[in-house]
Amino acid sequence: MTTEPISFLKDAAEVDQAAVQPLPSSRKIYVTGSRPDLRVPMREIRLSDSNTEQGPQPNAPLVVYDTSGPYTDPAASIDLRKGLSPVRDAWIHEREDTETLAGYTSEFTRRRLRDPALDILRFEDHRKPLRAKPGRNVSQMHYARQGIVTPEMEFVAIRENLKLQEARELGWLDGQHPGQSHGASIPLEITPEFVRDEVARGRAIIPANINHPELEPMIIGRNFLVKINGNIGNSAVSSSIEEEVEKLTWGIRWGSDTVMDLSTGKNIHETREWIIRNSPVPIGTVPIYQALEKVNGVAEDLTWDIFRDTLIEQAEQGVDYFTIHAGVRLHHVPLTANRVTGIVSRGGSIMAKWCLAHHTESFLYTHFEDICEIMKAYDVSFSLGDGLRPGCVADANDAAQFGELETLGELTQIAWEHDVQVMIEGPGHVPMHLVKENMDKQLECCEEAPFYTLGPLVTDIAPGYDHITSGIGAAMIGWYGCAMLCYVTPKEHLGLPNKDDVKTGIITYKIAAHAADLAKGHPGAQLRDDALSRARFEFRWEDQFNLGLDPDTARAYHDQTLPKDSAKVAHFCSMCGPKFCSMQITQEVREYAREHGMETQEALNRGMQEKSEQFTRAGARIYDKI
Amino acid sequence: MTTEPISFLKDAAEVDQAAVQPLPSSRKIYVTGSRPDLRVPMREIRLSDSNTEQGPQPNAPLVVYDTSGPYTDPAASIDLRKGLSPVRDAWIHEREDTETLAGYTSEFTRRRLRDPALDILRFEDHRKPLRAKPGRNVSQMHYARQGIVTPEMEFVAIRENLKLQEARELGWLDGQHPGQSHGASIPLEITPEFVRDEVARGRAIIPANINHPELEPMIIGRNFLVKINGNIGNSAVSSSIEEEVEKLTWGIRWGSDTVMDLSTGKNIHETREWIIRNSPVPIGTVPIYQALEKVNGVAEDLTWDIFRDTLIEQAEQGVDYFTIHAGVRLHHVPLTANRVTGIVSRGGSIMAKWCLAHHTESFLYTHFEDICEIMKAYDVSFSLGDGLRPGCVADANDAAQFGELETLGELTQIAWEHDVQVMIEGPGHVPMHLVKENMDKQLECCEEAPFYTLGPLVTDIAPGYDHITSGIGAAMIGWYGCAMLCYVTPKEHLGLPNKDDVKTGIITYKIAAHAADLAKGHPGAQLRDDALSRARFEFRWEDQFNLGLDPDTARAYHDQTLPKDSAKVAHFCSMCGPKFCSMQITQEVREYAREHGMETQEALNRGMQEKSEQFTRAGARIYDKI
Repeated sequence: MTTEPISFLKDAAEVDQAAVQPLPSSRKIYVTGSRPDLRVPMREIRLSDSNTEQGPQPNAPLVVYDTSGPYTDPAASIDLRKGLSPVRDAWIHEREDTETLAGYTSEFTRRRLRDPALDILRFEDHRKPLRAKPGRNVSQMHYARQGIVTPEMEFVAIRENLKLQEARELGWLDGQHPGQSHGASIPLEITPEFVRDEVARGRAIIPANINHPELEPMIIGRNFLVKINGNIGNSAVSSSIEEEVEKLTWGIRWGSDTVMDLSTGKNIHETREWIIRNSPVPIGTVPIYQALEKVNGVAEDLTWDIFRDTLIEQAEQGVDYFTIHAGVRLHHVPLTANRVTGIVSRGGSIMAKWCLAHHTESFLYTHFEDICEIMKAYDVSFSLGDGLRPGCVADANDAAQFGELETLGELTQIAWEHDVQVMIEGPGHVPMHLVKENMDKQLECCEEAPFYTLGPLVTDIAPGYDHITSGIGAAMIGWYGCAMLCYVTPKEHLGLPNKDDVKTGIITYKIAAHAADLAKGHPGAQLRDDALSRARFEFRWEDQFNLGLDPDTARAYHDQTLPKDSAKVAHFCSMCGPKFCSMQITQEVREYAREHGMETQEALNRGMQEKSEQFTRAGARIYDKI
Repeated sequence: MTTEPISFLKDAAEVDQAAVQPLPSSRKIYVTGSRPDLRVPMREIRLSDSNTEQGPQPNAPLVVYDTSGPYTDPAASIDLRKGLSPVRDAWIHEREDTETLAGYTSEFTRRRLRDPALDILRFEDHRKPLRAKPGRNVSQMHYARQGIVTPEMEFVAIRENLKLQEARELGWLDGQHPGQSHGASIPLEITPEFVRDEVARGRAIIPANINHPELEPMIIGRNFLVKINGNIGNSAVSSSIEEEVEKLTWGIRWGSDTVMDLSTGKNIHETREWIIRNSPVPIGTVPIYQALEKVNGVAEDLTWDIFRDTLIEQAEQGVDYFTIHAGVRLHHVPLTANRVTGIVSRGGSIMAKWCLAHHTESFLYTHFEDICEIMKAYDVSFSLGDGLRPGCVADANDAAQFGELETLGELTQIAWEHDVQVMIEGPGHVPMHLVKENMDKQLECCEEAPFYTLGPLVTDIAPGYDHITSGIGAAMIGWYGCAMLCYVTPKEHLGLPNKDDVKTGIITYKIAAHAADLAKGHPGAQLRDDALSRARFEFRWEDQFNLGLDPDTARAYHDQTLPKDSAKVAHFCSMCGPKFCSMQITQEVREYAREHGMETQEALNRGMQEKSEQFTRAGARIYDKI
């Protein structure tokens, strides 16, 4: 875990083999849109037949959302040193609103490129950076507001629909619980026009930097599937470039919709280049971390010029969204003085320290419009940071937190004036009964700009299990309307996550996001639950494993007690044993219902009515005594 | 895992050493009540000093609820072959309403005792069974309704208070969030009289069989701390007596408030004897499982006489609560025919099968009052089983489930007529937005009799992680008013839990129960969160570990990145590294606040007001442009 980054040799860079195997019984499929180069990836899970009295009946395969990119496509050739193929290139250039720069604009970038000591770890990049032509705005929001449906928007629409049209015609969606949307308005089918309108309205964002052509576009908004983010990144004490790229490919394999690179250690410019060039998902960063490195960790020494150069450096690498803590204002800072854990956001405390040292307003706040100019020249989305989020349940929903949130609402309006995409970051540590207030206040202050929360953790007493304390809050706030959930791993508060922790965090958050989709009544969300439950009921063990979020773990757990292959088709499990099984008995109930003419719902109700009367009379004997 | 029970040799029986070590920096304390033999165990966690400008300041130790019994008391001598000391003996005999029987009443028990083949695994029991004198009722509810405060009630009152009186006087509870109780009415201090009134009212139960004198009494009710249950038990394919006793001592070490023995395999009578004699927590069972064994798994062959003998067999061993599926009525059964997963409760499907085979009402229902007579002769509490609980989200809240719940409400009234204690079992698999309806309907149908739910699981798609899918639902329903949460382990649906799974399940459910207490605003619940957060903020790493639910795991995770002891006092962690830490910056914020006369809340507000005006003017420059 303490490999020095410099030990990394780019020529030896190899993809993690564990990340490029297709998932069991799954194949990558592509749905082609209105143009041949618009191919939307999905994962199809093949199921075995059901054994019925009429003999084996085939089960339709289930299509699920796929964030893993080309890595799980056996047809794709993967070479980390070359990076992924730039699927968006044509879409970007066709718009004819960008110019290819001769070189990188950032001073810092040019200095790094000149340094021969970095040759051995530098990604061999042959592309030239893009930037909007003078006076042009290349944000998806800008296009949307002009009524343009971009290929990115069409891609997203197809992706969100998951080929549901067919299932809908077959009536498979009818059985789903209606759900309680808390004001979300999710259409039965997502059209490209709906995507455009949501982006134009600011209620959803498509993070898609023009310098990240390798991206498979995705959308973040309360009227779409709830998304999750996984954090990676090395620190001064641990981890190398290799490990970070491995965490990326590992994280998206299990379902990370976006990945944030929170590196604070050495060579973070080069680490980021390797990550972006090999990432099919949006990459987010917190530029102030790197800016702080540039002033040797002395927050007071930060300047607008250094920060500005950092924004351009990262924008030209292709970062899709920036966390910017522009909502931390000088007059908020003293409000944290009496907190139990004060300021726990790194970005927030950096800016607080700067504000105090200079006793003036933060340059992120005073230069906010200058930042907007940079964002729209590359289509980098804002993730307005919650620098004053509570670090413990005691500090939840206090004046500092909500004071900042109101400022974030003001900044959202300014960003929207520039047609710049915005999402809002949220807490943190919040007890269950205070979670909804966070969601409601955010919707109100930020006019439904997508909310992106860290958990929240609903208690502080379980270090080592904060994926669970936060998964509870995440599921709830997702239901209430949160658009993206930032994962928390078991190592939170204790150390840097390793690959296992990343997977555990991702799976936990896929559970939270899906539970939220179910509770919101997202069309088709219940199909996977029903398919898995049917497999469970019919003892199709392999299907039960393969339909789960983590087939490998499910199979391994089953095999701990019943390793034999025969057990995979057995009509029992180790919980009840072969002699007795409740599932089997239910089959007899069905026969009984048939025999007594109760196979239809009406018949059932009629039958129940009769029996009810009959047995209330019988039962009456009992109640007479009372 | 497939040890044959017969391999167990009672003379070799030894306590699991991992279960008898005191937890780190913790000591067992006893609070003595109104009589010397009423000693209520608690765990005191000692904390290190805080380093302040005024030098080291001591931190008061934190007292936490302790379910681990004598096992974590170095002063106690533990011998599994002798069992725990009968702390309740005197309390029971003083009431002079019981008689000591010459031998066991149950035919089956006597047969087992005569069988020499069982000598090597039989617990050497020298006690004689107790039963209420003819015409007497020995239930805690019966005493409560006569206005009697039993030692059990006083024990529970002291236990629930956790020595909070002192903390309250010091004002430590004032900082806690008020909470949202959803109709629960929890007093600031639990008095023995309040316990009595809640038990008399049927809103809480104290499971305490007169044949389980080793029990440390606890209470289950919506106006008390939310409790959790851990299931153990062998099956036909796996596990031995030794393993089950190990799971018991392991489970209560981590916080299991009650333990259910769900054994369905061989020698379950002897297994149960070992478990009860060594258990300081209430033991629950599902008697129909053993009854089914007695008729070789043929449900149709079950009779009232066999079941009755099984109830008496287990009641005279000391089982504290019985799960009885008396709510499964013939006319409910056809309602499950169109379900996705039919009937998934083992007890429910056994009774459904019996009802169908005989096409008549269940003997559990028709003999319900006969069962009450047995319950009150030993003070066994009802846990009215939800035999028709949904086995997948698709089947949640349907006619079968709620039809049974209404019947359970009728049966509750009958049990209360007999002064028999009752709790009600609940689902199961329920999407988040349908969880509250379950709680509200149960409170209404069963007049606030304690609800005891299995999860619920909020999605079906994560086999291998169902401790998490269910932990989400458990936290929510606990907040809404559920009194006890039955744990689910990672092995759910896949296999029998081993010791690691038991621990993971328990910790996950302690998180859910505590999150619920916080959200309900349970007095003092936030003290542990605040103590841990303060330790975190002050870099008291050891305290942070020791105040957590699982100190061992927290320490191990921290040490994976920073193994050195020096790191345990370092003012940084591996997440940010030594150069930069947000917590440190917050210290400077406090100095700033002091310097600017903002140390009091009023000063803070005044200060904020001024700055606010000052910077709104400054900020105005930005908004002018728009």
